[in-house]
Amino acid sequence: VLKNNLETTVSSATRAVTISRNGPVVIVGERINPTGRKVLISALKEGNMDVVRSDAVAQVEAGASILDVNAGVPGADEPALMRQIIRAVREVTDLPLCIDSPNPQTLEAGLSIYEGKALINSVNGEEKSLTSILPLVKRYNAAVIGLAMDDDGIPQTAQKRLDAARKIIGRAESMGIPRHDVLIDPLVLTVGADCQAARMTLEATQLIAEEFGVNIAMGASNVSHGLPDRPTINAAFMALAIACGLSCPITNPLSIPVHEAILAANLLMGHDEWAVNWISYYRSKPKE
Amino acid sequence: VLKNNLETTVSSATRAVTISRNGPVVIVGERINPTGRKVLISALKEGNMDVVRSDAVAQVEAGASILDVNAGVPGADEPALMRQIIRAVREVTDLPLCIDSPNPQTLEAGLSIYEGKALINSVNGEEKSLTSILPLVKRYNAAVIGLAMDDDGIPQTAQKRLDAARKIIGRAESMGIPRHDVLIDPLVLTVGADCQAARMTLEATQLIAEEFGVNIAMGASNVSHGLPDRPTINAAFMALAIACGLSCPITNPLSIPVHEAILAANLLMGHDEWAVNWISYYRSKPKE
Repeated sequence: VLKNNLETTVSSATRAVTISRNGPVVIVGERINPTGRKVLISALKEGNMDVVRSDAVAQVEAGASILDVNAGVPGADEPALMRQIIRAVREVTDLPLCIDSPNPQTLEAGLSIYEGKALINSVNGEEKSLTSILPLVKRYNAAVIGLAMDDDGIPQTAQKRLDAARKIIGRAESMGIPRHDVLIDPLVLTVGADCQAARMTLEATQLIAEEFGVNIAMGASNVSHGLPDRPTINAAFMALAIACGLSCPITNPLSIPVHEAILAANLLMGHDEWAVNWISYYRSKPKE
Repeated sequence: VLKNNLETTVSSATRAVTISRNGPVVIVGERINPTGRKVLISALKEGNMDVVRSDAVAQVEAGASILDVNAGVPGADEPALMRQIIRAVREVTDLPLCIDSPNPQTLEAGLSIYEGKALINSVNGEEKSLTSILPLVKRYNAAVIGLAMDDDGIPQTAQKRLDAARKIIGRAESMGIPRHDVLIDPLVLTVGADCQAARMTLEATQLIAEEFGVNIAMGASNVSHGLPDRPTINAAFMALAIACGLSCPITNPLSIPVHEAILAANLLMGHDEWAVNWISYYRSKPKE
């Protein structure tokens, strides 16, 4: 339960969202990402944006406050596709977007047509990433998610992930990007392969949040890879991570256990006065 | 994610259980308690111990490591009933017991026939409680749960609950009861009445665990009183509290959401190597 906290505000042309540990968790909806989604890949290959639009609507209805958009279709013209996806999403919602690509050209294609202050997913502590991504963050006055890794890969200790975060934040600040516009993703690997993996990430989360006050983003579903009943593990991990400082999960809000864990954690962390959101969610939920 | 940690060992004649943040959460099964349970009350009034025995067996099967026993039947001879309940439980399991009463006579009746090192539930920071309960803890070489409250009632800030814990631990140590035999329950009230109630308890949990290294016990289901879908709130609270230092929840292991949250938290906190317990639970679970 941390006190030190910066606020990050991202926006579209018509709407602003503030990420902060002083308020409810902000969900970045992760569904508009072709990785492993055959239906989406084949629609995108045909230039059909129906799945993108319906994913956007469904995630907004399920409680996402920001939508991640990723154009990673093998063989596609990713910069052009990123623009198409952003335009399609804009037909159905004005939520701020998280423009997601490891490729600076794809990011820039999205940023160049984006109205408002985007979130960029992601930079990391590798020199190549820092020198290609941070100038875009600066030029487009965006916020950015920094992955806690460096040229040696994903560090094996919480302390070294803190060091990787320090490197990213320091480089951003030296370029005039304010610290509050950098979110850090401490990275989580599956506990199926290493039973200390999640604990180390939780320790890194706490260290980074306490040391720098930055918001913590996390794509957390990887934690349960290879294990049975993944939604229950992911839901518990969400609550553990929120207690340690997670403020911006990148997740599928259509997963009911994860979404309910987030709503309950908001309530329990003091960000749902009179349980208004909890009760209204419960009332709107289809009864079995 | 705390490093400072004492170990508490309780036992029966034939089995020892160690409570520690360096290992999996230890569940105290709370079911053998007549409060609000008409079926159990009427059985106990008739001297029928069948419900007690079946509650004991069910909780052992569901993963409890310690069983709470409470003889609070209105109008009953509680000391005699406590002895009967302990003997009945002993017919079906050798788990260590948590002898639960605000009444020193009832506690002593249980302790006088108990074989092993019992857990006592509870003392608190009120003078009357300290002077009547701690001598029993000392005399019977028991461990004890200390409720973080004092003569002014339940404190309204985490810092004051820390102070109440300090008072209990200090008094115990001055009587020769080692600190590792004192668990602290930071106490949680429902978030339905005060949306900061759970957050304050989580802060108190972390403060008390960090300051004293003691194990943290908690009867946590109260947190959701008056709200819809209580099991989901309780499950999320369990994960949040474990991240803050809870090592000994007093709960109903037959509540599937809460039990699964605890198993998942054990896995994610690094206390379930190769996910052996998680996978074995999943395999034994009846499929829908």
